[in-house]
Amino acid sequence: MNLRHLCGGSTSLFRRIQSYQLSFSSSSSMADLKSTFLNVYSILKSELLHDPSFEFTDESRLWVDRMLDYNVPGGKLNRGLSVVDSFKLLKEGNDMTEEEIFLSCALGWCIEWLQAYFLVLDDIMDNSVTRRGQPCWFRVPKVGMVAINDGILLRNHIHRILKKHFRGKPCYVDLVDLFNEVELQTACGQMIDLITTFEGEKDLSRYSLPIHRRIVQYKTAYYSFYLPVACALLMAGENLENHTDVKNVLVDMGIYFQVQDDYLDCFADAETLGKIGTDIEDFKCSWLVVKALERCNEEQTKILYENYGKVDPSNVAKVKELYKELDLEGVFMEYERKSYEKLTGVIEAHQSKAIQAVLKSFLAKIYKRQK
Amino acid sequence: MNLRHLCGGSTSLFRRIQSYQLSFSSSSSMADLKSTFLNVYSILKSELLHDPSFEFTDESRLWVDRMLDYNVPGGKLNRGLSVVDSFKLLKEGNDMTEEEIFLSCALGWCIEWLQAYFLVLDDIMDNSVTRRGQPCWFRVPKVGMVAINDGILLRNHIHRILKKHFRGKPCYVDLVDLFNEVELQTACGQMIDLITTFEGEKDLSRYSLPIHRRIVQYKTAYYSFYLPVACALLMAGENLENHTDVKNVLVDMGIYFQVQDDYLDCFADAETLGKIGTDIEDFKCSWLVVKALERCNEEQTKILYENYGKVDPSNVAKVKELYKELDLEGVFMEYERKSYEKLTGVIEAHQSKAIQAVLKSFLAKIYKRQK
Repeated sequence: MNLRHLCGGSTSLFRRIQSYQLSFSSSSSMADLKSTFLNVYSILKSELLHDPSFEFTDESRLWVDRMLDYNVPGGKLNRGLSVVDSFKLLKEGNDMTEEEIFLSCALGWCIEWLQAYFLVLDDIMDNSVTRRGQPCWFRVPKVGMVAINDGILLRNHIHRILKKHFRGKPCYVDLVDLFNEVELQTACGQMIDLITTFEGEKDLSRYSLPIHRRIVQYKTAYYSFYLPVACALLMAGENLENHTDVKNVLVDMGIYFQVQDDYLDCFADAETLGKIGTDIEDFKCSWLVVKALERCNEEQTKILYENYGKVDPSNVAKVKELYKELDLEGVFMEYERKSYEKLTGVIEAHQSKAIQAVLKSFLAKIYKRQK
Repeated sequence: MNLRHLCGGSTSLFRRIQSYQLSFSSSSSMADLKSTFLNVYSILKSELLHDPSFEFTDESRLWVDRMLDYNVPGGKLNRGLSVVDSFKLLKEGNDMTEEEIFLSCALGWCIEWLQAYFLVLDDIMDNSVTRRGQPCWFRVPKVGMVAINDGILLRNHIHRILKKHFRGKPCYVDLVDLFNEVELQTACGQMIDLITTFEGEKDLSRYSLPIHRRIVQYKTAYYSFYLPVACALLMAGENLENHTDVKNVLVDMGIYFQVQDDYLDCFADAETLGKIGTDIEDFKCSWLVVKALERCNEEQTKILYENYGKVDPSNVAKVKELYKELDLEGVFMEYERKSYEKLTGVIEAHQSKAIQAVLKSFLAKIYKRQK
């Protein structure tokens, strides 16, 4: 593939990606990868803003431009970057071609677009205030409920990117199916979360480990852990039906990751974590409350019911005290140890060294994380 | 295809569709078609509620069941039914097989699902009160903003239906691309509508015929007129790239249809129309206000600016009076005559008699409609 062609004739964009690519090829440091990755964002955005299937007005083109910059590239980009990382590992030391670098970045961005789509809409549903250190998109003046349609646009951009760069390739239809399936699973996870933790009627008896697992698996694990690797596998010409074991281990890793998240929300140092956890106040179906419910005696259960989901610091303190009493820190440490052991065992039993490397790199990034 | 297979082993569902199908085959009256069509809805819904890609809880299965019944089948079903009608005409007198009846109904339902998805989300964005004679879904108790996620689910169901019934068929990837492209176009039309007619700053100078055309073409024409015929063409094994002329005439018909809608909103008998138009109060970018702006002298423009978009009946009356003064009824009649003439000319020049029949059947349904 000629990159000049990809860039739609924009010579300056072409030069920019070319220089990033050279630096990425010669030394594949994280900073270089991130530069290349961000540069591909500019190219994809520019293509979307000149999509021939719609006649933009100047005003609407500006709107989409601003909406994308506000919502898509501002996160940690872990999910997107891990497509490139994973594909590189699947190549087992062989250099990536220019085309492969571009395409794996493009797939990575599709995941970031998917994430942006979920976050824009979730923030409305959760009535959130800030996201990534700025007001949620729907709270920006003149946006409001137009954010719902922006969410739809973000979702549709994924398919435009896939169509522009993958239509005609053998993996095209599988990529489209993959993104659709993962989107459905995420929406189903969100549905259970919304229905179970419905604001109006706080009811702890609805919370249990199986419900927590289901919310976490569908709402987070598929799109955050399975999707990046599945994208890399498809780009490498693999049939996903031969890799249900990879899916399972990544989903388990995603669940472990979310349990960490729930643990850190309460027990991490707020400074290190970069935010103050509010799961207790928010009546979240957290792994901690679910574990607590499992371990409580009658009296402790009463304390939990009386204090969980209340904003008053004295209520929150009582819940935290109970968590300490029930040794949830110890329970978590044990869960973490066992999860790591189990995941490592499964990974090391895998017949492909390249896939082992991909999975180990994911696990290494999250094991015993403090934030 | 064995229908027993399609029905996932549900014998009673199988019997039900079988009997409907027999009646549809022997006499293809509209009532029979509608029964068959509604029966396919039950089958599709049942499949979605038992989709193996998600582990439903009882509660979430009930939620989706109720959400679908509330939002999907309650409209006039014109778009969906016209897939079956169009495909039948493309077969030029040859009987449809059981499989073809089922599949064309399934595609028709995909359009109805798409419509439901747009309506659920549009109603939130427009802060609407009722839809199809009942409260908007987000106004139903305990639904609220969960309706946003329900909209996403509706959208995802389309792809599940396509995958279950069309994966492996030659038209699968084109169907997926088609639905994605039309969804994007609709969302882009909605974006221009939302941005142009932004509540906070009512500004008539933003309204013009080109803007009106763009909103209407993208927001309505593609999914209401082009999509049903494109689905039928793909099922008939056609390549849509050979039918841009069909797309163009259907998009023009869609624009004509929306101009009628705008006209009827103000000039139709409310009894016949079944609702009271509020485009003037709502500051809508209607064809009438756009035409009025074109024809106004300075003084009339002032009247329009002062009275458009206000709920007070005296303001509305002044706008209506101005419309009469400018003879917008006559302007519309002339537009209608010319549109019909032009559309008929293009249709009759088409080389395929079967496609002519499809297009004429669409035109006949809307020409000089009173509601």
